[in-house]
Amino acid sequence: MISQSVEYALRAIVTLAQQEGEPCTAKVIAQITRVPEAYLAKLMQGLARAGLVNSQRGLHGGFTLNRDPHDLTIWNIVEIVDPIRRIHECPLGIESHGTTLCPLHRRLDEAIQGVETTFRETTVSELLAPAGSVAPLCEETKVFSLDGRTGRVRSRKRSTSK
Amino acid sequence: MISQSVEYALRAIVTLAQQEGEPCTAKVIAQITRVPEAYLAKLMQGLARAGLVNSQRGLHGGFTLNRDPHDLTIWNIVEIVDPIRRIHECPLGIESHGTTLCPLHRRLDEAIQGVETTFRETTVSELLAPAGSVAPLCEETKVFSLDGRTGRVRSRKRSTSK
Repeated sequence: MISQSVEYALRAIVTLAQQEGEPCTAKVIAQITRVPEAYLAKLMQGLARAGLVNSQRGLHGGFTLNRDPHDLTIWNIVEIVDPIRRIHECPLGIESHGTTLCPLHRRLDEAIQGVETTFRETTVSELLAPAGSVAPLCEETKVFSLDGRTGRVRSRKRSTSK
Repeated sequence: MISQSVEYALRAIVTLAQQEGEPCTAKVIAQITRVPEAYLAKLMQGLARAGLVNSQRGLHGGFTLNRDPHDLTIWNIVEIVDPIRRIHECPLGIESHGTTLCPLHRRLDEAIQGVETTFRETTVSELLAPAGSVAPLCEETKVFSLDGRTGRVRSRKRSTSK
């Protein structure tokens, strides 16, 4: 129901939000999110084109989040990656229906609207686990960080003082 | 978000419910629902295999609904055609997460759960319009019926006494 591309993009965005401004290469994001690297790289290009992430070349380059996680919603990401289509008009093209939906399409649209509302109301900051709970995309009590020297992912104990 | 197969199958089931026991060939259902005939025929085979519809061969044969529209829900149809997958376990396979979802996957699952609830609570009988409102899959104030002689679809005025 939620496309794989959307789910993968959300993993990537949450990963960048967890890095708190530290650039992260596509290879590293793919490693953390467990998404095939080529697939991830293509998704990141789309997110960069849409201005959601910055892409910086060079030795210490990589992707950073270009938006405040408190202002960025799941809906914003879905809209870029694989927009959810509401049913505003009769899908059969029946002229007399027009924008007045029959009970079948009205009910389907209500279900879609529920998802839209949840996604519009959920910011990326809400997807970052508070200390002590299950952290997204990583082993419990650990978060990933980058090894400055090797560029490899390493896990570190989560700070409980946050 | 709702797959085309599910939407088409719902159109077909609603069409059969509107026929009130009168057999309807795949060709006629395809005509009413405006679904490509080959696609529709394949969907009907699946619904017949699952026991949701009866298939009767012969001159006056066709498909009939095998369930009471008051007991048949959207969910029942979705389950057969293209099941909605809830997120019960960490999709990344992170062992320490197990069935304890992180905030990202918990929120996604909540959105899916909302759709599940709507679909479980909506019966096919609720998708049939009361007289005077917009009827599913047909021009306003008309419902389709079958011409016994030619087997063609004809539209008739909707009864307002129902």
